Amino acid sequence: MSAQNAFYAQSGGVTAVINASACGVIETARQHSDRIANVYAGRNGIIGALTEDLIDTNQESAENIAALRHTPSGAFGSCRYKLKSLEANQREYERLIEVFKAHDIGYFFYNGGGDSADTCYKVSQLSEKMGYPVQAIHVPKTVDNDLPITDNCPGFGSVAKYIATSTLEASFDVRSMSATSTKLFVLEVMGRHAGWIAAAGALVEDQGIPVITLFPEVEFDQEKFLAAVRAKVERHGYCTVCVSEGCHWPDGRFLAEQGTRDAFGHAQLGGAAPVVANMVKEAFGYKFHWAVADYLQRAARHLASKSDVEQAYALGKAAVEFALDGQNAIMPTVVRKSSAPYVWEIGKAPLAEVANVEKFMPKDFISEDGYGITDKCREYLYPLISGEDYPPFENGLPKYVTLNNAGVARKLGPFEL
Amino acid sequence: MSAQNAFYAQSGGVTAVINASACGVIETARQHSDRIANVYAGRNGIIGALTEDLIDTNQESAENIAALRHTPSGAFGSCRYKLKSLEANQREYERLIEVFKAHDIGYFFYNGGGDSADTCYKVSQLSEKMGYPVQAIHVPKTVDNDLPITDNCPGFGSVAKYIATSTLEASFDVRSMSATSTKLFVLEVMGRHAGWIAAAGALVEDQGIPVITLFPEVEFDQEKFLAAVRAKVERHGYCTVCVSEGCHWPDGRFLAEQGTRDAFGHAQLGGAAPVVANMVKEAFGYKFHWAVADYLQRAARHLASKSDVEQAYALGKAAVEFALDGQNAIMPTVVRKSSAPYVWEIGKAPLAEVANVEKFMPKDFISEDGYGITDKCREYLYPLISGEDYPPFENGLPKYVTLNNAGVARKLGPFEL
Repeated sequence: MSAQNAFYAQSGGVTAVINASACGVIETARQHSDRIANVYAGRNGIIGALTEDLIDTNQESAENIAALRHTPSGAFGSCRYKLKSLEANQREYERLIEVFKAHDIGYFFYNGGGDSADTCYKVSQLSEKMGYPVQAIHVPKTVDNDLPITDNCPGFGSVAKYIATSTLEASFDVRSMSATSTKLFVLEVMGRHAGWIAAAGALVEDQGIPVITLFPEVEFDQEKFLAAVRAKVERHGYCTVCVSEGCHWPDGRFLAEQGTRDAFGHAQLGGAAPVVANMVKEAFGYKFHWAVADYLQRAARHLASKSDVEQAYALGKAAVEFALDGQNAIMPTVVRKSSAPYVWEIGKAPLAEVANVEKFMPKDFISEDGYGITDKCREYLYPLISGEDYPPFENGLPKYVTLNNAGVARKLGPFEL
Repeated sequence: MSAQNAFYAQSGGVTAVINASACGVIETARQHSDRIANVYAGRNGIIGALTEDLIDTNQESAENIAALRHTPSGAFGSCRYKLKSLEANQREYERLIEVFKAHDIGYFFYNGGGDSADTCYKVSQLSEKMGYPVQAIHVPKTVDNDLPITDNCPGFGSVAKYIATSTLEASFDVRSMSATSTKLFVLEVMGRHAGWIAAAGALVEDQGIPVITLFPEVEFDQEKFLAAVRAKVERHGYCTVCVSEGCHWPDGRFLAEQGTRDAFGHAQLGGAAPVVANMVKEAFGYKFHWAVADYLQRAARHLASKSDVEQAYALGKAAVEFALDGQNAIMPTVVRKSSAPYVWEIGKAPLAEVANVEKFMPKDFISEDGYGITDKCREYLYPLISGEDYPPFENGLPKYVTLNNAGVARKLGPFEL
């Protein structure tokens, strides 16, 4: 069997460790150059495949590829672009096959979240439905930690570590100031539908910090919330609130919505923190500060979780190994064997069971009052933020790599998206 | 000469390294226990002195005091409370002397910014004006970097490192997303009147990032700003904006003001980022993300600058040594001998020349178009963010110390603030 090429692309919101998965894919493929001649990366995700805008990763030095392991963001560019069904847009699938054929692509590695798992699943069906043999493997990635079956998703552990650390640090700060100044600190974190990231903020309760966590899974009750804040301030002198961007009123309205939508049609959020802070100020007059971490949290490679980096790399590596083993339409997963000590191994899940399924926080992970987490949740979270994996620094700043991203010569005509 | 006690207090907004100064003060005092019997820390700053709420630091273990070096925030509590002049509130000064006498306090170490230098200066005059011999030394601290004479202020270097790193990481993120999604990222940073912190964001231009920095020193010009953003997006596909909370219109109005004021009467700011982001969206329709770092930036001990930590400690140590040398009414300073290699030493400045003087960015530190920094500014900034000084971690989180803060038995009656 002669060597074929592989296609790799990054999809959706990027993370601190998605490039570690890219590193795992490319380094492993290079070890099997008898089977995989080259990894062509899609420039800006699947769009790179459709427009035949392919990046020749063989032209990158081993040193540059290794540096992906400690570089946040998507080194080849990502995109928010979801393929329609084969019936609704056959033209796109025909184009994909045309590009795959032109560049002898037999392996398709797609690195993304739930929407991307759906795209990957559709590609995995091309062999059967359109007669083009391609093996499609999905590499999980999402800070939202909402993919099913896998114990957790690469990207989440590092955000969780960043949010827990930031909540701890800012809480120490407000504690110092509370006698004469700030009594309330509100940190807004990502998480449209699932409160996994917000739950990380709740971990600092273990260090004696009075923190109230607002999850998307729990309908917002203003009166109850205000009473909870007041009780914490009266007891501790201050209070920290960790609010998920997806926190919403009983009627479904988000605490703050900017009114715009992203390319997938999801509401673009931001601004729950000032809403919450002003609400408390109006009720009790407490001086407040608020922060919105936004991209800072998912890009914070400088504070990545070591276990997260290791898993991101291992899942990229496993994707290639599964492909070489002849597998199709699967996603490598993290399987937890033990929390203390933390032991995990690589498993796999059929894409049919992954695509478009969202995993929420289990009910027994959220405390009875709805404002904190249970011991079961703690046991789940701590291993995911364990260990540090600092990037190299130069002149006081992290030394991240920007690849050359040389294009592969085009063989086909243009394609209108 | 028999040993006397020292008073130490933290004032104003706390930082990632103010406790490193406390560590320097206490460890050095302990080395001279023949001259300084105990360091009494004010609980919540100068208020602790006025209310005779003193903390007995001799009861803290050497290990706990050493851990202050890597713990952010103010370990003894800080306050925003400015002493009036001797003429306007003689009662407060008489009370201070009463407390100093009751607890045999001969040294006064005050750790703060410009307002606090003023308080420290007033205390230093008590000997001459009210016949009580006390030596008052000010230990500089402010993330705003706006104290005069000293080359820089402890706390600033670490914020600068955090903001430059975060700007770099978030810019890598938006660069990945810009083909189909976010094209504009706005990060709001601290700095009411001086743009030192915003200038740190501008450093990432050296890594090819298209960044526009909005300084408080430069009046905001909407038309010119929008044109600059558009030019960057058209050339690079995306643009990062680093906006100082103190950025303002020609008439002096801040881009965003919450309408509340802190205890010093300064406007409490926050929210320039969404204003700027929406302004660009309305003009060009670019999808945006914005973040407000707020307390996260000044509490981020996990990413402290090594030179900042070393200087914070050295200035605390120097304060004690100056006091033992019989000095009064001074502030130890950082004197830069060379930028490359970075060489600095400890100097001193008379408090009369420090109190209430604000140091702005020099005109020749800001680029001609007002949106970036000059090479002179780069040369100034890089040494301040140099080196890493990670705290120890445990269970995935930084291991910060919370002191016991045992009180000193009161000898006097109560005092109404």
